[in-house]
Amino acid sequence: MTKLIIDCDPGVDDAVALFLAFASPDLEILAVTTVGGNVGADLTARNARVIRQIAGREDVPVHAGATRPMVRAPVEADHFHGESGLGDLAVFEPTAPLAAGHSVDVIVETLMTQPAGVVTLAVTGPMTNLALAMRREPAIVDRIGHVVIMGGARTEGGNITASAEYNIFADPHAAQVVLSSGCRCVVLGLDATHQVRATDERVAALRALGTPAAQAAAEVIAFSNGIERDLVGGKSAPLHDPCVIAYILAPQLFTTRPCRLEVETGSALTLGHTAVEFRLADPAAATVRWVTQANADGVFALLNDALAAK
Amino acid sequence: MTKLIIDCDPGVDDAVALFLAFASPDLEILAVTTVGGNVGADLTARNARVIRQIAGREDVPVHAGATRPMVRAPVEADHFHGESGLGDLAVFEPTAPLAAGHSVDVIVETLMTQPAGVVTLAVTGPMTNLALAMRREPAIVDRIGHVVIMGGARTEGGNITASAEYNIFADPHAAQVVLSSGCRCVVLGLDATHQVRATDERVAALRALGTPAAQAAAEVIAFSNGIERDLVGGKSAPLHDPCVIAYILAPQLFTTRPCRLEVETGSALTLGHTAVEFRLADPAAATVRWVTQANADGVFALLNDALAAK
Amino acid sequence: MTKLIIDCDPGVDDAVALFLAFASPDLEILAVTTVGGNVGADLTARNARVIRQIAGREDVPVHAGATRPMVRAPVEADHFHGESGLGDLAVFEPTAPLAAGHSVDVIVETLMTQPAGVVTLAVTGPMTNLALAMRREPAIVDRIGHVVIMGGARTEGGNITASAEYNIFADPHAAQVVLSSGCRCVVLGLDATHQVRATDERVAALRALGTPAAQAAAEVIAFSNGIERDLVGGKSAPLHDPCVIAYILAPQLFTTRPCRLEVETGSALTLGHTAVEFRLADPAAATVRWVTQANADGVFALLNDALAAK
Amino acid sequence: MTKLIIDCDPGVDDAVALFLAFASPDLEILAVTTVGGNVGADLTARNARVIRQIAGREDVPVHAGATRPMVRAPVEADHFHGESGLGDLAVFEPTAPLAAGHSVDVIVETLMTQPAGVVTLAVTGPMTNLALAMRREPAIVDRIGHVVIMGGARTEGGNITASAEYNIFADPHAAQVVLSSGCRCVVLGLDATHQVRATDERVAALRALGTPAAQAAAEVIAFSNGIERDLVGGKSAPLHDPCVIAYILAPQLFTTRPCRLEVETGSALTLGHTAVEFRLADPAAATVRWVTQANADGVFALLNDALAAK
Repeated sequence: MTKLIIDCDPGVDDAVALFLAFASPDLEILAVTTVGGNVGADLTARNARVIRQIAGREDVPVHAGATRPMVRAPVEADHFHGESGLGDLAVFEPTAPLAAGHSVDVIVETLMTQPAGVVTLAVTGPMTNLALAMRREPAIVDRIGHVVIMGGARTEGGNITASAEYNIFADPHAAQVVLSSGCRCVVLGLDATHQVRATDERVAALRALGTPAAQAAAEVIAFSNGIERDLVGGKSAPLHDPCVIAYILAPQLFTTRPCRLEVETGSALTLGHTAVEFRLADPAAATVRWVTQANADGVFALLNDALAAK
Repeated sequence: MTKLIIDCDPGVDDAVALFLAFASPDLEILAVTTVGGNVGADLTARNARVIRQIAGREDVPVHAGATRPMVRAPVEADHFHGESGLGDLAVFEPTAPLAAGHSVDVIVETLMTQPAGVVTLAVTGPMTNLALAMRREPAIVDRIGHVVIMGGARTEGGNITASAEYNIFADPHAAQVVLSSGCRCVVLGLDATHQVRATDERVAALRALGTPAAQAAAEVIAFSNGIERDLVGGKSAPLHDPCVIAYILAPQLFTTRPCRLEVETGSALTLGHTAVEFRLADPAAATVRWVTQANADGVFALLNDALAAK
Repeated sequence: MTKLIIDCDPGVDDAVALFLAFASPDLEILAVTTVGGNVGADLTARNARVIRQIAGREDVPVHAGATRPMVRAPVEADHFHGESGLGDLAVFEPTAPLAAGHSVDVIVETLMTQPAGVVTLAVTGPMTNLALAMRREPAIVDRIGHVVIMGGARTEGGNITASAEYNIFADPHAAQVVLSSGCRCVVLGLDATHQVRATDERVAALRALGTPAAQAAAEVIAFSNGIERDLVGGKSAPLHDPCVIAYILAPQLFTTRPCRLEVETGSALTLGHTAVEFRLADPAAATVRWVTQANADGVFALLNDALAAK
Repeated sequence: MTKLIIDCDPGVDDAVALFLAFASPDLEILAVTTVGGNVGADLTARNARVIRQIAGREDVPVHAGATRPMVRAPVEADHFHGESGLGDLAVFEPTAPLAAGHSVDVIVETLMTQPAGVVTLAVTGPMTNLALAMRREPAIVDRIGHVVIMGGARTEGGNITASAEYNIFADPHAAQVVLSSGCRCVVLGLDATHQVRATDERVAALRALGTPAAQAAAEVIAFSNGIERDLVGGKSAPLHDPCVIAYILAPQLFTTRPCRLEVETGSALTLGHTAVEFRLADPAAATVRWVTQANADGVFALLNDALAAK
């Protein structure tokens, strides 16, 4: 049973990641913490509760968090996520409210009260909450089990600028704080997530499961596929954020490589670029691992198995 | 009666600022919040309590805060402040403990519970605490009365590098967050503080007051004068941080000019440089004012008057 | 018959590019201009003449050029090219001397005296000479036919740093000058050249041709394969620079895509990174094309055909 | 008799500098080389000849040079210099033509043919020509006597941006090349030139000399004073560029201090800022000196004495 905090900015692919996590019996989700990112912080906090309600998991607390990045001005991505942040999904006002406590405080308190090394953090949005938590209470760095992150790009160019991926670009300073903190990080960048594409067959299979979560997940994925066709010129959208939960559930589906990862924070041209260096004097001492390969069939099998039951 | 939070990293000149504030009957000091800076956070939190005890102001709570800058690696300045941070002052373990509550939380709670616009912040160290507070609770920006800051340089070159002053250099990202927040700021850079020099006559007059605070203040200033001679090649050290309290008590001692102030956060060469632009389309709309002139005799008169009574 | 200036810093793969060009009857090589890069400028000017002599092409003038980058400090890459710059090749003092005239002047004069639009530039080293020529005589920009460049990386990470390829890193300012000049550029980065690998079979086939040029080319390629194994952990080295000549001879072997290409010149972390943006408002107006695919068999067939006759 | 090359972009204050140099019998002006800067390169080349003709010094060759900066896009300053570059001066088409030879080549050839160490360079515009010359022929660095430069700011803030002076901002890369080359440089930044103000009395005294050069100089200075009042809010314009010639004629009018000077080339905010560091491990080894004090009366006396005779 993995103890987990999910820090997210739903967001269409965050939504699928949440559906997968909520449906996975092997995860003890201590909290969902939200952050401004793909859409504004008000919307991401609302959207997480929408997903929670569809998934029937009101037992999991949802907390609101940082409304803007550590240093830079906010950058949203609603052209990829729709005005609501959840694509075409029929969004409603959730019944259950936000839990008390700011995301930053919840991350700090959870890590300081749970045994050291047992809590995994799944971060599928800008890393603002976690970075602020590290500055608020530096002792958490040594208490984190590991952090699994969706962010960055090495062999795929960027998606928000030529050289940067959205999550890192949206708060490069936070990313630099987390990735240089010394805590164990696994980073799923576009190199990995672009291997996990929502082909029409895969979407159809998901929808055919018939459960509310599966249908809602299929719907937001279909929205992403439309965006992929219209804005990117591709055919099937990558399933970015669900890879984070998939990695936590089944790391054997992914290949990782130790690296040193530095984030560009000083240049307007390359802001948020992830400089991933594999040539290390001592690879065994590396605290950051970069995901180079993903088993797409395995990820979708995991998703379908989980959502079939919900 | 000005309601005040003093956010500081004592530090020899912070110590004098604290003595001045503690001795001023017109100030209601709501809290002293400390931050790592001139010396480590453990020492600044201890030193603030040492000064408080000498001043006999145990009624004022002292809180510990951020132990490292928002993004960059810590840079201390103990060659200017001595190993303890208080020069040659005989440092002791203070009787009264730290108050509960992290500096960031205390700043947030104070501003959210006091009436809007009445609380002044005096910031004499790196702006880490205030910037983290602004990210933790953005609503505080509109509730701050104004922030009076020691930091930056325009006509004096830098003191820690060729182009940067220490407080800004130590956390340039925090400075950028605060100075671009839209709250009202008055910035006392080296341009102003280098006009307020601790000549031998002034130090002698201070010492002659004979009160414990005056003698301790004279002692740390004398230490600074020694450093000024040995490291800088000058004769009398500038009294940086006390200018912040002096400005709050007697703004008429200073001349200010509206400006746009941006902090360099992207270049290693000029990191922490303050780009002060006076050529504004709409000077009346400026929220930041840069201090261009300081009345040194007035500042010392204020200090002597206050410490004579303590 | 393509009129060509080859601007290079031999360098083991520059040497193979020169062998290919010297052996190609369809190229009228107006000049070989050299520049400091992989090894110092003295050595590259000597090495170009060594290759010329082996190829029996003393009819082509070789000129020496810039000894250091436009702005930054020189960075050599002799760990990839051997101390002489030509790997294990037995280097000798060439019989024919350098031609009079600095590379920069030769580029300017050639472009200003040849008809506009007919001269192709093949650039296989840092772009210092061409950038200085553009600043010396801006009119050349409109007289260049096109520039075919080996440099940069988009989907392959860097080879000299995490995010930069050597030729661009060695003079990022020159690259920025050329690529933003408005002249037509085709850029073969690591994305393309890493597809053209010198497998053992390909090296054996080349060596079996038995001509002096083929044998020398095989020898330097074998040296590169050794480096690839020892330093990179790969099996077969990429044939970077020969791709430039191959593109000029047979562009149908390559797939290109219009882009906007900006070079990082301001950040130490990502210095020399090529930000390649394919999302253009008006692709037809793009002057720069990025090579995405290379036909490795085709490139080696071209090389073997050319060197079989020499 | 000082052998001198004057590299300039006239420009109203360049014009006064030229009048001073042309009228000084102790200077052997080997060449006037021009560069694009305050106004475009066509105009600066024309303006230098206008000044030469008024001064009756057609014996001095004027050469045209670089039309744009080394790397960055051109930035003109015609709001300070008028559309023609010479303020209100009645500009005419000069009788004597430009001399053959590009400024860069003339600088190289002059330095390589004159004895080492005897030629002084007076640079009153962007340093593009000299930097390109250093890259074209690195050997000139050791043959330069010294370079006297108008550029930069330390205690005066910038004049074109908050932190940069125009000449350095206009080509920061060239400035960095020259100032880090190792040749002896004396730099007159705004710290010095703002001490040399064209008060009404000084302008009147100059005009009263009655010579054509004095009257033309008084006219362009009066234009600058008008700009100073309208755009800067000051009363009397600083006489920037003439300080360079004054320093060469009478260095005793200035106080200099050894420094390390680095130019910001990587940040948009502080581009062209001069980081002047006086704290040197070995001041005697410094090749760059920064001018801290200027004797304004002395500079004007020099100017009046020279122009009285013309």
